[in-house]
Amino acid sequence: MSYCSKAYKEPSAPKIVTSAIPGPESVKQIAELDKNFDARPVYFMCDYENSVGNYLADVDGNVYLDVYAQIASIALGYNNPDLIEAAKSPEMIRALVERPALGNFPGKDFNGILEKVLKLAPKGQSQVWSALSGADANEQAFKAAFVYYRAKERGGFEVKHSEDELTSVMENQAPGAPELAVLSFKKAFHGRLFASGSCTRSKPVHKLDFPAFKWPQAEYPYYKYPLAENEDYNKKEDERCLEIVENLIKTWPSTKGAKVAALIIEPIQSEGGDNHASPYFLQQLRDLTTKHNVVYIIDEVQTGLGATGSLWCHEQANITPPPDLVTFSKKFQSAGYWFHDEKFVPQLAYSIFNTWCGNPASMIIAGAIGEVIQREDLISQVNRVGDYLMAKLNKLAEKYPQHLGRLRGKGTFIAFDLESTETRDKLLKTLKLNGCNTGGCASASVRLRPTLTFEEKHADIFVEALEKSLAVL
Amino acid sequence: MSYCSKAYKEPSAPKIVTSAIPGPESVKQIAELDKNFDARPVYFMCDYENSVGNYLADVDGNVYLDVYAQIASIALGYNNPDLIEAAKSPEMIRALVERPALGNFPGKDFNGILEKVLKLAPKGQSQVWSALSGADANEQAFKAAFVYYRAKERGGFEVKHSEDELTSVMENQAPGAPELAVLSFKKAFHGRLFASGSCTRSKPVHKLDFPAFKWPQAEYPYYKYPLAENEDYNKKEDERCLEIVENLIKTWPSTKGAKVAALIIEPIQSEGGDNHASPYFLQQLRDLTTKHNVVYIIDEVQTGLGATGSLWCHEQANITPPPDLVTFSKKFQSAGYWFHDEKFVPQLAYSIFNTWCGNPASMIIAGAIGEVIQREDLISQVNRVGDYLMAKLNKLAEKYPQHLGRLRGKGTFIAFDLESTETRDKLLKTLKLNGCNTGGCASASVRLRPTLTFEEKHADIFVEALEKSLAVL
Repeated sequence: MSYCSKAYKEPSAPKIVTSAIPGPESVKQIAELDKNFDARPVYFMCDYENSVGNYLADVDGNVYLDVYAQIASIALGYNNPDLIEAAKSPEMIRALVERPALGNFPGKDFNGILEKVLKLAPKGQSQVWSALSGADANEQAFKAAFVYYRAKERGGFEVKHSEDELTSVMENQAPGAPELAVLSFKKAFHGRLFASGSCTRSKPVHKLDFPAFKWPQAEYPYYKYPLAENEDYNKKEDERCLEIVENLIKTWPSTKGAKVAALIIEPIQSEGGDNHASPYFLQQLRDLTTKHNVVYIIDEVQTGLGATGSLWCHEQANITPPPDLVTFSKKFQSAGYWFHDEKFVPQLAYSIFNTWCGNPASMIIAGAIGEVIQREDLISQVNRVGDYLMAKLNKLAEKYPQHLGRLRGKGTFIAFDLESTETRDKLLKTLKLNGCNTGGCASASVRLRPTLTFEEKHADIFVEALEKSLAVL
Repeated sequence: MSYCSKAYKEPSAPKIVTSAIPGPESVKQIAELDKNFDARPVYFMCDYENSVGNYLADVDGNVYLDVYAQIASIALGYNNPDLIEAAKSPEMIRALVERPALGNFPGKDFNGILEKVLKLAPKGQSQVWSALSGADANEQAFKAAFVYYRAKERGGFEVKHSEDELTSVMENQAPGAPELAVLSFKKAFHGRLFASGSCTRSKPVHKLDFPAFKWPQAEYPYYKYPLAENEDYNKKEDERCLEIVENLIKTWPSTKGAKVAALIIEPIQSEGGDNHASPYFLQQLRDLTTKHNVVYIIDEVQTGLGATGSLWCHEQANITPPPDLVTFSKKFQSAGYWFHDEKFVPQLAYSIFNTWCGNPASMIIAGAIGEVIQREDLISQVNRVGDYLMAKLNKLAEKYPQHLGRLRGKGTFIAFDLESTETRDKLLKTLKLNGCNTGGCASASVRLRPTLTFEEKHADIFVEALEKSLAVL
C-alpha cells in the first residue's frame, strides 16, 4: 500500500497546457519578480497550493511529475498531510514566533525536538550539531574537525591554549589561526560559502571571483558501467585515487605549508555528475584517515535521507569504525552534522556557537519527516521502486545506448549521461514539455531525484515520457 | 497607548521564586539536554508558552523582565499576536511544508513576501538578497563585493572571464580565485563562518583553531563620554582611525599581496563592547571607500530594526551616497543584504546562488514584524522610552560612577562599563536574581537589548532592579 493513496489525492498523470515552458503567465510573473530578485535561474513560477505528492503545478496550469523535487530537497512530496500537521502544531508556532537563542535560552520542548531528529542518525552516530544549510553544516563540521585536530596537537583537551595562540589568532595568524587544510575531491560540491566553497570543485561559476583557501584536491574514482562487468578496472581506479589521497596528505604540509586536518567526500558526487564511490574506496579512506590522523567527514547533504535505498548512503559501505562527522541538509530540512565521539565536542564552550544554533522550525519538520519515513517504511519502497525503474531504464538503454550512457544508481538516486551538453539540455526541455521535471548535473548527465513517495506508477509515467523525448532528440 | 496593552497581557512585574539561577528544574533539564547538545552556555531552560511580551518565563516559574531578548534577536516580545497570526497563515504552512528552491522554482506568493520585506529597506536601498543568518548574510555580501570588484578590474560586466580564470579557479588559485581582502575593525563581530570569522576580532574564542584569511584590521574609534563634553578629543580619535584605514587600503596590496575589495563595519560594535562610530566617521569611510574603489558594507545584524531609534542605525549618519551593501539578520528574523545599485547583481546567473536562496518562513515573519513596527510607530516609542531610560541611568551614574562608566546609547540600545569583568559578571547574576535578564559584551560592559515594545514602566522596573543590584555589588 502506498503512502500517497491513503493521505491525499494526486492527479493520475501530468498535464501540460502551454506550448512552451515557462508558459505565458510564468513569463509575466518572472519579469515581475526580477525587479526584486535575480530571477535569471527561474525555470517557472510554481503554484504550491495546487501541487500534490509527486506532482508540481505551475501558474499556467501545467502539472509536472516532479523527478527533481526542489534540487533533491523535498522528501515526501507536496502538501503532505503529516507535515501540514507539524506546521500547524503549537511547538511550531512557538519556534516561529519565539525563535530562541538555543545555546543560551533553549525552551523546555527543545530536547524533545532534538530527540526526534536524533532518531534519524546514521548507524554508528549518536549526536548532532545543528546548522542552517548544507554549506553551513559542512563549515560547522570543519570547525569541529579543526578544534579536535589542534587539541590533539597541543597534547589533549586539558592543555590550554597558549598566550601566543590567544594573541596571534586576533591577527588571523598561526598558531592561533593555524595553517590547516581540508582535502576534497575534483568535481566535489560542498556548498558555496568561503571554506565550503574552497572544497567545491564542480563548476567555475560556483567559485569565480571569490578568494579561496589553498586546499588540496584528490581524484574521485570514475568507474566503468555496468559495475559487475568492470570489477578489475574499477578496483584499479580506486587504488589510483587512494594513492593520490595518501600522497596529498603526506606532501601538502611540506609543499604548501598546511597540514591536512580533515577529508570531506560525498558517497555519490551529485552536482559533479553522480559519480559513485565504492564501499571499498570509502573503507580505505577510513583506514587512511585513521592512519594519518585526518578527520573523516562524509557529506550526505544530497545523498542523505533515503533516496539511495538506505537512510544514509554511506551506511551501505558499512565503514568501520564509522566516519567521524556526517553532514546533512536538503531533504531533511534541518541541517547539521552527526558525530559519535565526545572528542568532537569542542574544548571550549562558545567555540562552536552562534545566535540561533540551528532552526527549531526546520528541526520540527525534520522530526515529522523522519516519523513518516519509518511509519511508512519508505526506504523499502525506494528500493522496490528503484529496482523497478532501473530495470525499465536498462531496457531503454539497450535501445538508446548513446543517450543513456553509464546508467547508474542506488535506490531511486539514478543518473545517465548524454553524448553532449546540448543533447542533455534539449532532453531536459523536452521532458518538461512531456510532463516531467528533472535536472541535470555535471556537463552532460541527467539526474533523477524523486521524492521518497515515488511509486511504480510514477516510474511508468517517467519512462514513457523519457522514451517519447528520446525519440525526438 | 502602548502596543502591548491592547494585544496581550503581560505580568505587571518580574517574579523570582528560586534562590539560585538556574533553578533546580532548569538544572535538571540542562543536564538532560547536555546528553544531546552542548549545554555549557545555557543560562536557564525557558518556558516560552508562558512568556509574554517583555517577560521571559523559565521552567522553575521564574519570570524575568527580558532586557536581552535572545541576544538582541526578538523584535516584538514573546507570544506576539500578530506574529502568531503570521505563523498560522496558509502561506506559512506552504513555506514550511513545500520549502522551495527559490532560485529555480519560486512560488506565486514569493514576490509578495519579498515586497513586504522590501518595505523595511534602509533609506537609499531598494533591493535585497536573502540569507539564513548574520554570518551568512555577511558572506553573501562579500561575494557580491568580490564579483563586482573583479568585473570592474576586468573592464566591466560585458568582459567575460578569461580561460586562465576559468582554469585557475578550480585550483583555488589567482586569477580565478583572486587575492582580495575585506578590511574590518578591531573588536568587530561579523559572524563565525570562515570569511566572516576572518573579519571578527572581538574575542579569541570565536576564532581559535580555525584557519583564517589574512585580512587587515583597522582601529575603531574609542570615544570619551559624554560626547558633548569631548568633541575635540573624539574628532581627533576619528581622524586617527581614518588614517589607519586609508593606510591599510593603500599598503595591504604591496605588503600582503591582497587588494582591499571591501570594508565592513558595524555602526555600533555590539559584541565588541558597544563602541559607537560617529556620523562623521561613517561618512568619511564612504568618501575613502569611493576614492579607493572599495565596496562599503555596513553590518546592521545587531543594530538593525529600530532599537537604536531609527529603523537602521546607519540612517542616523545620513551617509551620502548611501553605503553599497547593508547586512541584516537577528531581530528581523530573515537575513540578507540590502543594495541599491544594479552593479551588485552578479555578472553571471548562478554566481550567488544556493539550493534554498533564503528561508520564506523567516521572510513571512519579517514582513509581519515590519507591519507591526510601522502600524504601531514603534520607532517613536523606542526614542521616547530610550530618552526616559537614559535620563534615569544618567542619574544612577552620578551615584555609582565606578559601575556605570562611559554610559552610552542610541534609543534603547544602551551600554555601560563596570570596573572589571568580575564585577560585571556579578552584576549580571544579581540582576537575574532581581528579575532582570540582560547581557554583557566586551570584557566589562553591560548591554541592554530590550524589544521594541519596551515601555517606560519596564524601564522603571529595570532601573529599580539595577539600583538594588548595584547597592550590593
